[in-house]
Amino acid sequence: MRILGVCGSLRKDAFNLQLLRNAAGLLDDNAAFELADWSNIPLYNQDDDNDNLPVSVQAFKRAIEAADGVLIATPEYNYSVPGGLKNAIDWASRPAYQSVFAGKPVAILSASMSPTGGCRAQAHLRNIMAGMLTPVFPAPDFCLASAQQAFDEHGQLKHDQSRRKLQRFVNDFCDWIKAH
Amino acid sequence: MRILGVCGSLRKDAFNLQLLRNAAGLLDDNAAFELADWSNIPLYNQDDDNDNLPVSVQAFKRAIEAADGVLIATPEYNYSVPGGLKNAIDWASRPAYQSVFAGKPVAILSASMSPTGGCRAQAHLRNIMAGMLTPVFPAPDFCLASAQQAFDEHGQLKHDQSRRKLQRFVNDFCDWIKAH
Repeated sequence: MRILGVCGSLRKDAFNLQLLRNAAGLLDDNAAFELADWSNIPLYNQDDDNDNLPVSVQAFKRAIEAADGVLIATPEYNYSVPGGLKNAIDWASRPAYQSVFAGKPVAILSASMSPTGGCRAQAHLRNIMAGMLTPVFPAPDFCLASAQQAFDEHGQLKHDQSRRKLQRFVNDFCDWIKAH
Repeated sequence: MRILGVCGSLRKDAFNLQLLRNAAGLLDDNAAFELADWSNIPLYNQDDDNDNLPVSVQAFKRAIEAADGVLIATPEYNYSVPGGLKNAIDWASRPAYQSVFAGKPVAILSASMSPTGGCRAQAHLRNIMAGMLTPVFPAPDFCLASAQQAFDEHGQLKHDQSRRKLQRFVNDFCDWIKAH
């Protein structure tokens, strides 16, 4: 099983990148994990929406197509998803009615320094996914609050409870993908 | 009074650009209209979030600061605002707690080929603005549906009813800015 991780932040030491790496470490042995790269995707302009897609967009779309499931971990910017992440999703959704996210199993995580842990970004992202007919893993929101205190110096989740919750999330996501 | 127009689409002949131009044409003589440019703003990365902001970001922030009110006209991409527009807004909201949108009167328009006229993008944009403590002009949603049929060959709104509704929206927005 191939799981693609998509991090909503471009920051080198992003909490959501650390969260994705923790999730990857909890995957079953028969699951392969890969990180998507959208850092070089240009701003979407419908005038450029033709057969000559930028290489970065082609690679992002191919990675999604090749995955059995996509795990998105995102911070919350201004009560919503980061614009850059949404821009990458917008590219992936084109051309119209041919989104590579259509029918693709997706699970959403968030991490944030705030006490709400990115829950508003998750709510918007669920809406966005609905717009592409993407099945989103129905689980209690995994919102990692106070993310600046959540990881140890090796980037590992410090608290047993968080690790156990993430383990269960990852296991159940994989089971749900298989059932799809 | 200075009104800044922000178009959510980068397409050269964007319906929302035409809608903004129609709105500008309906402004009072004592109101000046300017169009913002976010086409060269890079993807936001918190690692680059320092005193050396890209020139394109500086110009975008200055334009918002100088405006008495901002009129955003946006299409809807995947049930939300275009990622590129959100990315520009994310930059404008930095550094933390110093968003140039904080306290800035904003009005939202949308145009779309769909029968819903971009109403879901408006809903998300209102949330996003709430995240920056931005007062959003409280008016019935102006969602221009079937936008591909709404303008004549000179880019003017064809239907009297749309023009009258936009005239009223623009007048009331300017009155509301004055009252602020």
